[in-house]
Amino acid sequence: MSKRFAGPEIERLIQLLAKVPGLGPRSARRAALHLIKKKEQLLGPLTVAMGDALDKVRICSTCGNVDTTDPCTICTDPRRDDTTIIVVEDVSDLWALERTGAMNARYHVLGGTLSPLDGVGPDDLNIRSLVDRVAKGGVSELILAVNATVEGQTTAHYITDQLDGLGVKVTRLAHGVPVGGELDYLDEGTLSAALKARTAF
Amino acid sequence: MSKRFAGPEIERLIQLLAKVPGLGPRSARRAALHLIKKKEQLLGPLTVAMGDALDKVRICSTCGNVDTTDPCTICTDPRRDDTTIIVVEDVSDLWALERTGAMNARYHVLGGTLSPLDGVGPDDLNIRSLVDRVAKGGVSELILAVNATVEGQTTAHYITDQLDGLGVKVTRLAHGVPVGGELDYLDEGTLSAALKARTAF
Ligand SMILES: [Zn+2]
Ligand SMILES: [Zn+2]
Repeated sequence: MSKRFAGPEIERLIQLLAKVPGLGPRSARRAALHLIKKKEQLLGPLTVAMGDALDKVRICSTCGNVDTTDPCTICTDPRRDDTTIIVVEDVSDLWALERTGAMNARYHVLGGTLSPLDGVGPDDLNIRSLVDRVAKGGVSELILAVNATVEGQTTAHYITDQLDGLGVKVTRLAHGVPVGGELDYLDEGTLSAALKARTAF
Repeated sequence: MSKRFAGPEIERLIQLLAKVPGLGPRSARRAALHLIKKKEQLLGPLTVAMGDALDKVRICSTCGNVDTTDPCTICTDPRRDDTTIIVVEDVSDLWALERTGAMNARYHVLGGTLSPLDGVGPDDLNIRSLVDRVAKGGVSELILAVNATVEGQTTAHYITDQLDGLGVKVTRLAHGVPVGGELDYLDEGTLSAALKARTAF
């Protein structure tokens, strides 16, 4: 803004909203004005919800998921199948798979993929903790639900090697996932079908 | 969400973010996850900024603008021209006009347009306070920067009638504004040109 026409608190609110994915500078202004106009109905409740998230959100020490409890809602759910772990790159992939409702398993969030060029090695991902979970026993199948990218597949191969001798069946998503595509952008039907038609790795 | 896979605080955050203009249900999930991952850099500062806005934002008792002070930043700015008032329907129009940098005047925010079918009459808008401002003297020009819609033009005519005999020149934006268009969606250049080529009403 070339000239000051509102208090610095409002300009700061617009600046920060513009950093939220899905909002640009223009929609950040509209969002700010809408929030200000709906103080009681939206700005207040959203501020409380964000404060709650800020206070309570933590990373699950078992699976790497983010949640407001540790262990997370999924790790502590007694109705889930302990014998199957779905391995994902990111929490957004876990959310996408959960929305399909196709599986009732546990998860393990890697936190990325192996990428030597970017300096991301095995110790930068939650791979050791995954191998430890499997080594403890009780897991019969590991579904590698990583992106169908070079990095995703390289990571899948690395994990499979690490699990050698532990007697766990390793599967991957069926080829319903478009090559080069990212899980988080797919519709629930495609993801659901890919899970059901998973093949031996 | 068919099945609970995260704490209720996270689901509530997603629900509320989905009500922000520019974000739908899907982008609200992405936004929530991004905020959670950027706790220190974004979620924290944004929560503070929203809390500040919640505490401090009020409606200017002089012009109807929203700001963190009353009177607002524009009404208290000593460098602005007291002789010209730009009349707008909404704060978003005031922001759009300010971004052009074309004028250095005062404003008056009506808070809508006359719309008998929707039960919006003169007393539901900040028209009386506008007439009072003009009646106090010192204002030589009133620029009716209302939308080029039927309601906007009806409101402009009504205001002009109310100002009869007060000796103020009433102008409107030049016909650079597309018929039926809303100010807030126009680019700065068009708005700027429309202001400079304003005509007698
Ligand atoms: Zn967990
Ligand atoms: Zn004001």
